[in-house]
Amino acid sequence: MTISLGEIFLWELLGTAVLTLMGCGVVANNVLRKTGGHDTGFLMVNFGWGFAVFAGASIAEPTGAHINPAVTLGLAVNGQTAWSDVPVYIVAQLIGGTLGAVLCWAVYKLQFDTHDDPRNTLGIFSTAPTVRNAPWNLVTETIATFVLVFWIILSPQAGPGGTDGVPTFGNSALGYAAVAFLVIGIGNSLGGPTGYAINPARDLGPRIAYAILPIRGKGSADWGYSWVPIVGPILGGVLAGALALALPIAS
Amino acid sequence: MTISLGEIFLWELLGTAVLTLMGCGVVANNVLRKTGGHDTGFLMVNFGWGFAVFAGASIAEPTGAHINPAVTLGLAVNGQTAWSDVPVYIVAQLIGGTLGAVLCWAVYKLQFDTHDDPRNTLGIFSTAPTVRNAPWNLVTETIATFVLVFWIILSPQAGPGGTDGVPTFGNSALGYAAVAFLVIGIGNSLGGPTGYAINPARDLGPRIAYAILPIRGKGSADWGYSWVPIVGPILGGVLAGALALALPIAS
Amino acid sequence: MTISLGEIFLWELLGTAVLTLMGCGVVANNVLRKTGGHDTGFLMVNFGWGFAVFAGASIAEPTGAHINPAVTLGLAVNGQTAWSDVPVYIVAQLIGGTLGAVLCWAVYKLQFDTHDDPRNTLGIFSTAPTVRNAPWNLVTETIATFVLVFWIILSPQAGPGGTDGVPTFGNSALGYAAVAFLVIGIGNSLGGPTGYAINPARDLGPRIAYAILPIRGKGSADWGYSWVPIVGPILGGVLAGALALALPIAS
Amino acid sequence: MTISLGEIFLWELLGTAVLTLMGCGVVANNVLRKTGGHDTGFLMVNFGWGFAVFAGASIAEPTGAHINPAVTLGLAVNGQTAWSDVPVYIVAQLIGGTLGAVLCWAVYKLQFDTHDDPRNTLGIFSTAPTVRNAPWNLVTETIATFVLVFWIILSPQAGPGGTDGVPTFGNSALGYAAVAFLVIGIGNSLGGPTGYAINPARDLGPRIAYAILPIRGKGSADWGYSWVPIVGPILGGVLAGALALALPIAS
Repeated sequence: MTISLGEIFLWELLGTAVLTLMGCGVVANNVLRKTGGHDTGFLMVNFGWGFAVFAGASIAEPTGAHINPAVTLGLAVNGQTAWSDVPVYIVAQLIGGTLGAVLCWAVYKLQFDTHDDPRNTLGIFSTAPTVRNAPWNLVTETIATFVLVFWIILSPQAGPGGTDGVPTFGNSALGYAAVAFLVIGIGNSLGGPTGYAINPARDLGPRIAYAILPIRGKGSADWGYSWVPIVGPILGGVLAGALALALPIAS
Repeated sequence: MTISLGEIFLWELLGTAVLTLMGCGVVANNVLRKTGGHDTGFLMVNFGWGFAVFAGASIAEPTGAHINPAVTLGLAVNGQTAWSDVPVYIVAQLIGGTLGAVLCWAVYKLQFDTHDDPRNTLGIFSTAPTVRNAPWNLVTETIATFVLVFWIILSPQAGPGGTDGVPTFGNSALGYAAVAFLVIGIGNSLGGPTGYAINPARDLGPRIAYAILPIRGKGSADWGYSWVPIVGPILGGVLAGALALALPIAS
Repeated sequence: MTISLGEIFLWELLGTAVLTLMGCGVVANNVLRKTGGHDTGFLMVNFGWGFAVFAGASIAEPTGAHINPAVTLGLAVNGQTAWSDVPVYIVAQLIGGTLGAVLCWAVYKLQFDTHDDPRNTLGIFSTAPTVRNAPWNLVTETIATFVLVFWIILSPQAGPGGTDGVPTFGNSALGYAAVAFLVIGIGNSLGGPTGYAINPARDLGPRIAYAILPIRGKGSADWGYSWVPIVGPILGGVLAGALALALPIAS
Repeated sequence: MTISLGEIFLWELLGTAVLTLMGCGVVANNVLRKTGGHDTGFLMVNFGWGFAVFAGASIAEPTGAHINPAVTLGLAVNGQTAWSDVPVYIVAQLIGGTLGAVLCWAVYKLQFDTHDDPRNTLGIFSTAPTVRNAPWNLVTETIATFVLVFWIILSPQAGPGGTDGVPTFGNSALGYAAVAFLVIGIGNSLGGPTGYAINPARDLGPRIAYAILPIRGKGSADWGYSWVPIVGPILGGVLAGALALALPIAS
């Protein structure tokens, strides 16, 4: 079955919006002072992002549940996504990622208004390194995203393939819980140094939202770092798609 | 297969009772002084509510496992539940929600009797905002419930449909663990500001129980806030059902 | 297919031994001073017991994976286990429960030898109430076990039935992970007051081990309380089996 | 279907590399000062290793997903893996285990460079006992690995058998999430005394990496202990394979 560009746009936008709504939400819950989950810690943040992927990917199932330009590009290099569909995927993901972050701000509006350190709220929206050094930060994001996309392509948990040859977890038993477990694992294991963007739309979309939204007392959107969580994930995804092509995979 | 009103009443009551027994239970375990889980934190509370949904929904499987008026109304708007069944669903859910909270009190009776801050025990039963502001609290509850019901309608983890067209997870691989993961995610991500009622029966039932039960030194049932976790979830569920109707979903 | 008494004895003994080896192990890891997991908290303990059930039940799959006299008795009352098999189930579970606790002691031998509060190590083996009051402690154990056994009988996650009509999760998608999630939920939600025995073999077997083992500086085995985590779970299991019999369950 | 030695080498190397990349990564994230997950605790470490197994085993699915010499030897004793394949499995696992640890160091390079206690970083790579006593440390590693391999052989979550009779979870519903849950359970329950190597390649490979890598201010690789997490897991795996052979398992 062929999917239309309109469907790609619709489902990828909705799925990525749910992803950043919930993903930025768990960081807001952890960071902002007046929340039930204040300071619960990194493990909750990782479960939060993992189940955000679960929710968003479930919704974007009809179009292969990319919700991530690094996945789209990796699958295109791997020959599973048509290059002509790629721009629509990415534009939809970026718009969705921005929209989800706006909704997250609405959910936590009262907590943003009463936070005691409002200049340091960018971390709720976008990633930042704990030690700033662009080349090594790139290495971290590249390796982490490589694991994500390489696993998606190779995983036996992926179903036999959906529309247009795009791998789909919706047909398989664990469903998108498999992807959620992997993302929780990547967060726990490889997320310490850079906050694991592993998805340009998850980082750039919310950064745009942060720059635009009337958040009380907000600080800089740190555009100087913003290319790292774009370039690193793209590199990782493309490398994964290319390496998987070279492997003797039973079809 | 058609389900009778008696079956709806029975299974929804039992399922919702297990939901609030376990859900209120995990908060009791976290809050009350003399418990094994005292002060374990928000992540345990979220796993607790998630697996409470898992348990309760498994039991209410024969009737589509709504155990939540916002789900029932969202599915009715979406055309999957007959409007004539809706009142029975909701009445059963409310009675079950109240009954489960009474059982929770019995489980933690000795801990209620020895708690050092008994006036602040309403939070074990019902939700409360961390920053009180009805319109924004409504926004939070509406968005969080929208995600829940929208996902339930669209999720590929839902089985091919059970009795009367109601979506059922019992036929699918992850079963109600899928819903549990989503609820854990919503708790982690969107539960900080209002304690995520996302279910009028889960909030109103236990509030009634709190008002009635002879809890030692108990405080106010906070009826002034009680409409928010009713209206917000209903809005979110209805919006989700309506939006899903408008989408081009493959059947 | 009929299972022999020898198979029941073998698999129930092995499964229950793995259950208490891992279950007592996670408490040892949390309590004893010189361990990697010292003081990690109640959530780890609950995941530990849940996955201990997952491991033990997987191994006892050929005989329906009871590994718990309360489950055996509940299923017997419900008509799913032959009364003539019940004594063999229970004896095997008790021996296995004792053996697993002995193995747990071997795993943590050096930590027992270097613990700074050796008189208070019974809690690693058997449960104790946070507030001691036999009738209410019984209520807690009865309700918690009722939820476990009622759910096992009704759960759509249970497969279509194995040998001798005993429900089996091994044929279904989630497998015994479903039971693990439920047990984690019961621990989080209903485990605070009494440490959730919900299984006479899990409590009595390790208590016997504690009484017998040459644990450095050990304290009392608290036999005065030992009947509560036997009688409560049996009551809960029998009530669940009986109530489920009375319900209109589609077969 | 027969798998070639080249395929065994390829997939076991890749799978074990992902295992130690992510597994050592979660310890780095917990230990090193300047990370997002600093000091999150033992539960995160266990989820990290569990999902590292999930990721690595998914990738090594074509060759039965051993990624562990103790599993390979246990299955060989059990008659499920050809002895002629064993050396290739083990060599690939060791190379992969070393390579993954090198990648982990690259991911956390900046954090290694800025850590305040660099002499104590071996624990990120290899296991160490909390109380040093070779015989009892061996007992702990033997029992923990026995549970792992015994469960893998007996688990109903394992699929009907893949290439060359090797059990495979990729065909089954939970997939390698089943193994992940077991490993999280073993970590929680039996991992306190020795840090649960339960896999010689997971311990020796990263230890070699630690000895070789130019890690700033690094301490000893503690070769004196290194045989324990090799011999213990091998003993446990072989015992499990042999005991399972002796049991009356329905085929």
